Amino acid sequence: MDIASALDGFEHRDWDTDPDGEVRMAVVGLGNYGRNVSVPAIEAGDYCTFTVGVSGTPETRRAVADEYGVRTVDYEAYADGAAVEGYDAVYVATPNSLHLPHVEAAATHGKGVICEKPLEVTVERAEQAVEVCADAGVSLMTAYRMQTDPVVRRLREAIGAGELGTITRAFGEFSYNVLGGSRGLDQWRLDADLAGGGALMDVGVYPLNTTRFLLDTDPVAVQGVTRRSAPIEAVDEHVDFQVVFPEAVGNFAATLTGHPSAVLELHGTDGLFRLRDAFQPRRERTLVVETDTGRAVFEDIGRDETREEFDYFAHCLLTDRRPEPNGQDGLVDVEAMLAVYESARSGERVTL
Amino acid sequence: MDIASALDGFEHRDWDTDPDGEVRMAVVGLGNYGRNVSVPAIEAGDYCTFTVGVSGTPETRRAVADEYGVRTVDYEAYADGAAVEGYDAVYVATPNSLHLPHVEAAATHGKGVICEKPLEVTVERAEQAVEVCADAGVSLMTAYRMQTDPVVRRLREAIGAGELGTITRAFGEFSYNVLGGSRGLDQWRLDADLAGGGALMDVGVYPLNTTRFLLDTDPVAVQGVTRRSAPIEAVDEHVDFQVVFPEAVGNFAATLTGHPSAVLELHGTDGLFRLRDAFQPRRERTLVVETDTGRAVFEDIGRDETREEFDYFAHCLLTDRRPEPNGQDGLVDVEAMLAVYESARSGERVTL
Repeated sequence: MDIASALDGFEHRDWDTDPDGEVRMAVVGLGNYGRNVSVPAIEAGDYCTFTVGVSGTPETRRAVADEYGVRTVDYEAYADGAAVEGYDAVYVATPNSLHLPHVEAAATHGKGVICEKPLEVTVERAEQAVEVCADAGVSLMTAYRMQTDPVVRRLREAIGAGELGTITRAFGEFSYNVLGGSRGLDQWRLDADLAGGGALMDVGVYPLNTTRFLLDTDPVAVQGVTRRSAPIEAVDEHVDFQVVFPEAVGNFAATLTGHPSAVLELHGTDGLFRLRDAFQPRRERTLVVETDTGRAVFEDIGRDETREEFDYFAHCLLTDRRPEPNGQDGLVDVEAMLAVYESARSGERVTL
Repeated sequence: MDIASALDGFEHRDWDTDPDGEVRMAVVGLGNYGRNVSVPAIEAGDYCTFTVGVSGTPETRRAVADEYGVRTVDYEAYADGAAVEGYDAVYVATPNSLHLPHVEAAATHGKGVICEKPLEVTVERAEQAVEVCADAGVSLMTAYRMQTDPVVRRLREAIGAGELGTITRAFGEFSYNVLGGSRGLDQWRLDADLAGGGALMDVGVYPLNTTRFLLDTDPVAVQGVTRRSAPIEAVDEHVDFQVVFPEAVGNFAATLTGHPSAVLELHGTDGLFRLRDAFQPRRERTLVVETDTGRAVFEDIGRDETREEFDYFAHCLLTDRRPEPNGQDGLVDVEAMLAVYESARSGERVTL
């Protein structure tokens, strides 16, 4: 990897054509992540702005309306088309198993959608989300923020150019301490019906999807094991899973407890890279690249990938392009993750 | 982890009681590793010395006799008891599927044995090696050099004392470029009959056994996949395998091609460590420890663990103790590795 060009690339928006205009965003679901991570990222964007908030909680609607001077409505009003004249596109950040109706509402209103991962909690529901947007002719982006992270995008370019040879193996893990915040056990991520799964659905999807993006490939088989222990009772606290790709195998893990950590490694015939602090939102990352010519360490690289994510989505709408992490991309991961759960139960490798 | 005591521990021999005497070693198998790594380590030892060489190659016997001034014999003579008065113990470093007869010969001659990993290539043969030594009342140590590495031993102490909380997950990989040397494809490590397997048997055993040693635990189930590509035809070029322990899961990988690398990570409820250059012989290591109190990096730590290995073995003989990585320890890994191969073939998780 050419060090100077690599460093340069870690800040670069390879997709940005500097279009005119701005996309007005409705944010559906104003929980902690939506309100405290995504809304500020939308507000900071060059090509998007936050204009309508949707929440089921009256206090949240009032507080967000006050703080941002936007219109806020409840879920029913949003579904009925309230405020449709006030936004151009929709960001869905509700619990996972509620994504589909909100995506459907957006499609019905003719609005493009960026929907949080996982796209939905069953293959059928994820397929419906894809179909309804296709039928309505609106864009559907799965909110894979790592795909717009300039560090990840530069790595993808380098890998595609063969700078590490043929990639034969990936390692990835994301340890997110879900009980570390103020909510304790009272949160939808620990509710099997709302979340559709635990560590795998919430954070395991990051190493899976980011590896797929970097290698531009889809899984052919998976196997894995899940574990849980008190006080986590309803969903997988830990998942360890192998994903067989046509030319590589990914060894991935995720957990909802324990010491926070997030790493992605790709090993190739001519070298490897290791990305530290790989998946935490808005975190600067450390990249280690090793090849025959030596070892290079890049510290504190990148830029706020949640801002990149919303600007990328808005840029797609403004320039009439389809976002790359589309609904199909989200669907492939839902299929793979549900196959991991099936393998964990049956003890058998599951072919996709 | 207390930084000062940790640093101190990275050079410390916790087992050394400074006994008198010296163990005279016969080295059975003088291929590259035996001759160029192990013999110098034995010669450098405080408690052992190289006195008899066993090789099937006349040129090797002559050259080693000249270089070290030792007696050298062929395999037949060794089996028949030639030179038994000239050595106290035996180190077996032949191809894997030839370990058993040489261990049997040593036991017959009443000599303790340190045998290279894997102990043998089938469970039955590994069991026989254990039994024949038990019946003869001689020590059998499986040559797991990592178990005598002072860095690994200090980590084991810290983990046992709960300094990282409960360990829930391990990651480990060892990429050894078997074609990188002068022998090309003409070597026993690529011969299925002689090696009993490829990447898993040769290098995958390192993360497996070292994790078992650090956690003081045995596997309860395994699953995995193997791959190979030209020019490697007879054994696994790559292996990716999961090992389920009672309280943790290990995600391990090994390869005989690609960019060299060796890493071991253990993640606990209160922290994690990452050991870089973890398994290469006689390499200084880098250790990263992360806990709630911060991140510490220890660079260029440790001491020649092959010398430690032989001195530890000789020390056991001199002090009439049984070496900890005994034959049973080697047998457990043979069982686990063969179960990984079974899982790779069947697609099913194998319970042990």
